[in-house]
Parts: sequence; C-alpha cells; structure tokens
Amino acid sequence: MDEGRVLAKGLPAGPGAATGRVVFNAPDAVAWAERGEKVLLVRDFTSPEDIRGMTVAQGILTQQGGMTSHAALVARQMGKVCIVGCGELDVDLRGRSFTAAGVTVKEGDWLSIDGFTGEVISGELDPHPSEVQQILIDKTLKPEESSSFRYYDEVMSWADQHRELLVRTNADQPDQAANAIAFGAQGVGLCRTEHMFFGGDRIVAMREMILAEDHAAREKALQKLLPIQREDFAGLFRVMGDRPVTIRTLDPPLHEFVPHDRAGQQEVAAQMGVSAEAVAAKVADLHENNPMLGHRGCRLGIAFPEITAMQARAILEAACQVKKEGAAAHPEPMIPLVGSRKEIADQERIVRDTAEAVFTEQGITVDYLVGTMIEIPRAALTANEIAEVAEFFSFGTNDLTQMTFGISRDDAGKFLPLYLRQEIWPADPFETLDQDGVGQLVEIGIERGRATRPKLKVGICGEHGGDPATVKFCHRAGMDYVSCSPFRLPVARLAAAQAAIEAHGELELEK
Amino acid sequence: MDEGRVLAKGLPAGPGAATGRVVFNAPDAVAWAERGEKVLLVRDFTSPEDIRGMTVAQGILTQQGGMTSHAALVARQMGKVCIVGCGELDVDLRGRSFTAAGVTVKEGDWLSIDGFTGEVISGELDPHPSEVQQILIDKTLKPEESSSFRYYDEVMSWADQHRELLVRTNADQPDQAANAIAFGAQGVGLCRTEHMFFGGDRIVAMREMILAEDHAAREKALQKLLPIQREDFAGLFRVMGDRPVTIRTLDPPLHEFVPHDRAGQQEVAAQMGVSAEAVAAKVADLHENNPMLGHRGCRLGIAFPEITAMQARAILEAACQVKKEGAAAHPEPMIPLVGSRKEIADQERIVRDTAEAVFTEQGITVDYLVGTMIEIPRAALTANEIAEVAEFFSFGTNDLTQMTFGISRDDAGKFLPLYLRQEIWPADPFETLDQDGVGQLVEIGIERGRATRPKLKVGICGEHGGDPATVKFCHRAGMDYVSCSPFRLPVARLAAAQAAIEAHGELELEK
Repeated sequence: MDEGRVLAKGLPAGPGAATGRVVFNAPDAVAWAERGEKVLLVRDFTSPEDIRGMTVAQGILTQQGGMTSHAALVARQMGKVCIVGCGELDVDLRGRSFTAAGVTVKEGDWLSIDGFTGEVISGELDPHPSEVQQILIDKTLKPEESSSFRYYDEVMSWADQHRELLVRTNADQPDQAANAIAFGAQGVGLCRTEHMFFGGDRIVAMREMILAEDHAAREKALQKLLPIQREDFAGLFRVMGDRPVTIRTLDPPLHEFVPHDRAGQQEVAAQMGVSAEAVAAKVADLHENNPMLGHRGCRLGIAFPEITAMQARAILEAACQVKKEGAAAHPEPMIPLVGSRKEIADQERIVRDTAEAVFTEQGITVDYLVGTMIEIPRAALTANEIAEVAEFFSFGTNDLTQMTFGISRDDAGKFLPLYLRQEIWPADPFETLDQDGVGQLVEIGIERGRATRPKLKVGICGEHGGDPATVKFCHRAGMDYVSCSPFRLPVARLAAAQAAIEAHGELELEK
Repeated sequence: MDEGRVLAKGLPAGPGAATGRVVFNAPDAVAWAERGEKVLLVRDFTSPEDIRGMTVAQGILTQQGGMTSHAALVARQMGKVCIVGCGELDVDLRGRSFTAAGVTVKEGDWLSIDGFTGEVISGELDPHPSEVQQILIDKTLKPEESSSFRYYDEVMSWADQHRELLVRTNADQPDQAANAIAFGAQGVGLCRTEHMFFGGDRIVAMREMILAEDHAAREKALQKLLPIQREDFAGLFRVMGDRPVTIRTLDPPLHEFVPHDRAGQQEVAAQMGVSAEAVAAKVADLHENNPMLGHRGCRLGIAFPEITAMQARAILEAACQVKKEGAAAHPEPMIPLVGSRKEIADQERIVRDTAEAVFTEQGITVDYLVGTMIEIPRAALTANEIAEVAEFFSFGTNDLTQMTFGISRDDAGKFLPLYLRQEIWPADPFETLDQDGVGQLVEIGIERGRATRPKLKVGICGEHGGDPATVKFCHRAGMDYVSCSPFRLPVARLAAAQAAIEAHGELELEK
C-alpha cells in the first residue's frame, strides 16, 4: 500500500490528525491498546457500547452518520480526531477489512486521518498536537516556550473582554471538564449521564435495571447505580468548582444499553440468573421502529419515576458531599425531551421531593435549579407554559433540527450530499443552525419563555453551540450562554465576541 | 372455546363488526378467501405488502400500532372493520396462533371483532351492515324500505345546508371513491399512489425500478409502471367526474417495497436475472434507522426526478384520456414532505414541464393545480415562501403530529396508554388534533401561506379530518375542506355544520 495516499474523504467531525493501526471493533481496540499499540477504530457507525474502544483509540473513522452522529458527538467531547459519513469506504466488519479507492486495508494496517479535511490517508504519519494543546492540555510545554500560545492567549483575552455570551461545555467526565476549563469553560452546559453507564460493572447494573421484571427488582438495581452516579457527579463538581453544572437525566431509549447479539444476551442472562430466551424476549420488546421518536427522554422518567429519583438523589447527594468538603457545587438537573408543561411538572416534582429528602438527611442544603431541554417543536410552541415550571431552557438543537426538518442524523446521509450539491439546503443543518426554520422555533421559545419568566436563563447545548454562525445567532436571540465540546470553546469565545462587536457596531450606526 | 367471550380489547380503528376464520398472513388470507372462506386477518402489524390480504379479509386485528398505523389507515379507507394496538394478544405468527385471556386461538378458528368498542370476541357472530350502508354501498336495500335511512338523509341534508367546509375523501381506488361519493365526498383529498404498486406485476416492476443499477435501467422499469398508473388514475377520474382529485406523488421510503426475507429476495433475483446476494445488498443499503425521518417524500423525487416525471405523466395523460372520452378530470398533483421552497420548486418544475409535453402530444389541455403537503414543522414555519410555488396546501397532520411531538405512530404505544392514564396528554394526539401545539403550526401555516397567496386553497388530509373536534378546528382555522376516509364522511359533514352554526352563533352574540 502506498504511504500517504488519500483513499477517501468523509465529514470532518473531530479536528486534528491521528495515525494508528486499524481495528474494527471496540473490544479489539481495547485489547490492542492494552498491549501498547496505537489504534484507529474503523466502524460502520458507533453506539454507546463502543465508548471504551473510542476512549483508547487515536481516532475514529465511520462509514455512516452525520456531524451529530454518535461517533461525531462523542469524539468531539473526548477531543478525538474523527471522520464520519465516509461513504466511499466499503467496510467489511466480519472480514476485518475495508476497501477504498481500490485499496484494501486490513486489521493491523497503518492508517491516518485528517479531522480538518476529512481525508483518510494510507500509512503511518507523524501527527503532533498544537502548541496550544501541548500547553493547556498535555502540559508538555510551558507558556513562555511558545510564541503561538502568546497570540492565542491575547486574542482570547480580547474576546473575553467583548463577549456577552457565557461559554459552557458539554462534558461527562472530570478529565473532559478539566480540558474545557483550560479552554475557558464557565460551566457545564450538558452532562449526558448515559455515557456513565458503560464500562465495567456499571453496564451490568444498568442492564439489571432495564431487564427488571418489577418495581422491586428495578429499585434493587438502581441502588447499585446510585453510588456510582454519585461519585461521577462529585468528580465533576470538584473540577467545576463555582461553575454551574447542568446534568441531563437519562435520555436514550433503553434498548441502547442491552446486547442485541446472542452471545451478549447469554452473558447477561448468566449474570442475572435468568434464561437467554428471557433476555432475548425483553430485548425484542424494547425494539422500536423509529427510536429517535420513541420511548426516551422524560418519557422514561415518567414511566419509571424511580430512575429520575435515583439520578436526582445522586446529583444532590454528590453536591452535599462536595459542599461538606468545603468546595462549591451548583447542580442544574435538566429534563430532556419535554413537550408539555405536565411532563416537566411531573419530573420537577420528583427532583424537588428528592432534594428535600436529601437535604434533611444531610443536614445541609445546596442551591440548584431545575430546567428543561427545548428540543421538540411543541416545547418551543408551548414555552410560555413550560416556563411556569422550568427555571432554565437549554435548546437541544440536534433533536430540534431532526424534528423541525423531519430528518434523522443517522439517515440523512442518504440524501444530504445531493441536497447540498443541488443547493436545496444552503448548508448541513446539523453543522450550522438553520436560522430560517429551526431558528424561528428558538426565537419563539425564548420569547414565550421569558414572557412567563422574565429572568429565565437560556442556553444552547446542541452541537451548534460550537459553530460560529450559530453562536452569533444565539447572541442576537438573547441567550445567556452557549455550550459546546471542550476543543471548540476557543472558537465559541471568538464568535461570541464578534457577535457582540457586530451588535454594538450596528447600534452606533443607528445613532 | 366459549362462543361470544371477550378475549381482549384494542383500539377501535375501523368501525363495524366482522366475523371470520383466523389467518395469520396475507397470502393465506387470499388463498382461503379464494376458496370461499370468510377470513379475519390477525397480524403483529401490517405493511404495504399485506394490502391484498387486507382487501379480502372481513376484518383486521393487529397486536401493535396506533390509530394512524398502516393497518388503521388502510382499513378505514377500505371500510374494513379493524382493531389495532391490541397488546393483550400474544401472537405467534410462525405457530399460526395467538393467546389472549388464557385462550389459544389457532388458524381456522372462528373469531369476531367489534370495531366500535375494540373488543375481540371468540367464535362466530352474525354481523350485518347498517341499513344506511345496505342502501348506499351494498345496494341491497332501497331507500324507501328503511326509515332509519330517511333520518340519516334528512340530517345530512340539514348539515349540507349549513356547513361551509367542503368534504373530500382519502381514496386510492375507484371502488373506494364510489363509496365516498355515496357518503357525500366532493373530491379526493388524498390519493396515496403507493398502494397502487402492490399486487401482481406491479410490484415486480416497482422492485425493478428500485433495484435498478442506473438511470437507464430505472427508466425502463418506470416505462412498465407508466401505463399501470395511468389506468389507475383514469379509473379514479372517471368515478370522480367534475370533482377535484388530489394525487400525492410517491411518499414511503423505498425499502417498504422490497422483500426483507431470503426467499423473497431469491424470487426477485430470479425475476430480475441478478444474484440473490445483489438483491440482499441493495435491500441492506436501503435500511434506515428512523425511516419516518428518512429518504422519503419529495426527497425521493429530488433524488430520482424520473419517478416524479413518470407519475406526473401518468396523471396528466389519464386526465387527457378521460377528457377525450367526454368527461371531466381535475387533477391536483401534490408533493409530499416538503420543508422548503426549493424542494417544492424542484418538483413543481418537473410536473409543469411534463404537463406541457403531454398537452402538446395529446393536442388538448386540462386544468390542474400543483400543491404540497404541509406535514413537517419547517414547512408551516416557512409557508410564506412555499406558497410562492404551491397552489394549495394540504395539512398532513399525521406526520405533523409525529414531528411536532417527536413521537412515532408505530412506537408511541409503549408510553401513550400511560400518558393518557396520567392525563399528561388530554387525548391521543393521533386521534384528535393537538390544537394547542400542532394546531399552532397549522394556523401559522395558513396565515403565512395566505399572506403570500390570498386565495391559497387549504385542506387537511391527515386522519384527523374525520374527527369531529378537529373538523371544527379546521373550520375556525379557515380551511376550505377536510378530507377523510369514506365511511367517516357523514361524521365530518355533521361536524362541519356544527362548526358553522357555532361560529355564527358567536357572531350573533357579538352583535
């Protein structure tokens, strides 16, 4: 195989450059990495069960999916180099090889990817982190050793003087949060709790909870998850200190957490002491034709109030614990996929009741807010009613884009390239917010929410929060903050400053 | 098995009562019916390939699905008795039996269903059609022989004197259209062309088109479909006469038309002279994670303009043909799933170019309108731009409900009963329009559409068009017509009259 030849081009979903030996599944990635190999994980697409493999990989390359696919979201948050939607690859997962541009790449072959251009390049290259990253994240370089860092730092300080939008980050883990702070994060805008359920014993307890036959069995499994979640949240609060931390309650449909293959089901059955058939039947029962529109978000918390109660308890016990340690914690539990006042009211009641109980038990209190995602059109349209309960809104523009357009981030790849080529859409609506359509719902949501609650705190936590054009829109729409993955924060800060300067420029012209 | 025992209760999706011997798949239904048996088709759910089996069945009973599932929609349109979402049934399709209330019902057993109450009843009962149906549809009774018909006829004549909304019907076939006219239809509001692609040679040609490797092969298959579609449309125009006929271009994702089992794929492969592996690969390629949000509607017509061109040609050639026969034809081609001006403009251009060509070839012209479905939120929000091109709007409130709520008609059954029990939603939003949420988008769409095109014709063709509360809403929102399945027309006429009287009552009070 020629070294350095461009084999294919996909969507640049995670910036940077990476090189490694190709593996085709997450367990292999973990095994190879454990024996010291640098690996690149190549998949058709990724799902939550691939998290551990993604964590150890230098980079991630997928054949399917768009800019807000699972692979893209997770990679950006981890700061991993990532290319998605690379349709030119013909991936044979079983045969552990892929073909592109007439070249067959097998397991163990060296491959490189460029997360800025989307190029897949044959052979081993020698990427290295930017000096800014070496200083802020890797700590392998001192600020005074880099002139490029001085420029970065100066531009960022100018940006921070001018911007009015706060910047937060989407982070689930203390190390991601620490990276984000290094890049200027002023809070966590979105902690997705579901990623915490993978890895080791956690997934076992999670599966026990999902496959539980009754309330008592579910409660028992939840009791195993409680201390794990509490420790996760405490870790996040310790890193974030005085900064607010928005934590979303369980969002994905439950079938994402259970094994769909026979071997996996047998393993779970053995762990739980039930038959493989029983597990298979339960998994089949969880199947949905359109999971994006399915039993997820607050619909889970309403069907299983004990899940929300466990998560609220973990959040508030962790906050009390960190406060007792002498630090600060500002949790903001957030309810996903709300579409009506009654849904948020149902879940808010559980959070507040749990908080009262925890504060009594712990003998202290912490300040907290209860808010909601605005991510389905009906939530924006009825924001005046939802704001009677919600203390903050966070626009989940990934889902809001899906519903407003009637497109799925996982499937849009079939016609999106054509739509862009024919200029039917001016841009990928998952990459930059569709201000003419989805933007209207954002504006309606803010206007109606603040009509009810004038000081309503409003932000965005969709991936658009790291897109400069969207950040400017958010400024104009009157948001308080944007939230994006850690490595996109400098861009967000800059765009926020530009938005403020543009707005004031206009004001001066008007005088 | 006890006769007359209620075994289970589902959603009453098609009114009436039916009795027959149980069969568990569409081919069996056809085979049994051909040898003179009355059959009841029991399935987990139905898909377009079950159409022929549904046609010959006395009634349809499904374990899954809601009020706008495939089974429910098709059954109502056919006037079949139907119960859907009957979760109490444990259906074993392979074993050709189901269990409910401890009773096992096997293939060939007699079963009865009540489409008003949703009750599934063991044994053979003796249902018979209402006198109104015997007179208007079956023609087995004369009007003067029935006093109940006289009341019906008088009430309907009063309703027609007062109502301002026109009523149309959702019908694909001449016999359905004829039923609809008997019940007072003033036009076809929705002809779904996809049902025409099933049965006999049609599906073979359709599959050839879908599996075609290039444009030339696709064109060749489309040329086989053209005369079939033309005859279908001509049949509909002949029945409808002076009344307008709205025909929706191809809407469902293509994977609904291809076989997903090995045997079916081998059959298609043999018919087409390719390998079964090639067919399997193409079918796998068409798979979507969220088909409701996938490659469907106008996205198909934009990717494959030759499909829209073929359908436009079939519609307009049929109209010319019927006009030459001395009758009238008022076709209204309608583009589905539009979300932006450019999408409707792209498809409208194809329809108008085709019309010009057909009129030149035929030496005559027919009047026609080109319109669009408004069924995704973005279409309602940008209706002012879409109305620059579209000559009419038809609100597809089934899909609009799905997108506005972020729920799928196929999956909502998992939490909808809970939501209704806990009164989180006041009613099933697929059954009666959510006026507070989805209704806002309808109002926005009408207001903005008419701001651009004051005389824009506006109707509704979602299943809500047969729901009295929704019909009244449509009157207040200023629609021109509602469209519903044939047997719901009397109810729609009545509700339309009530809406007009209520509105005028208010006006009098205001004076």
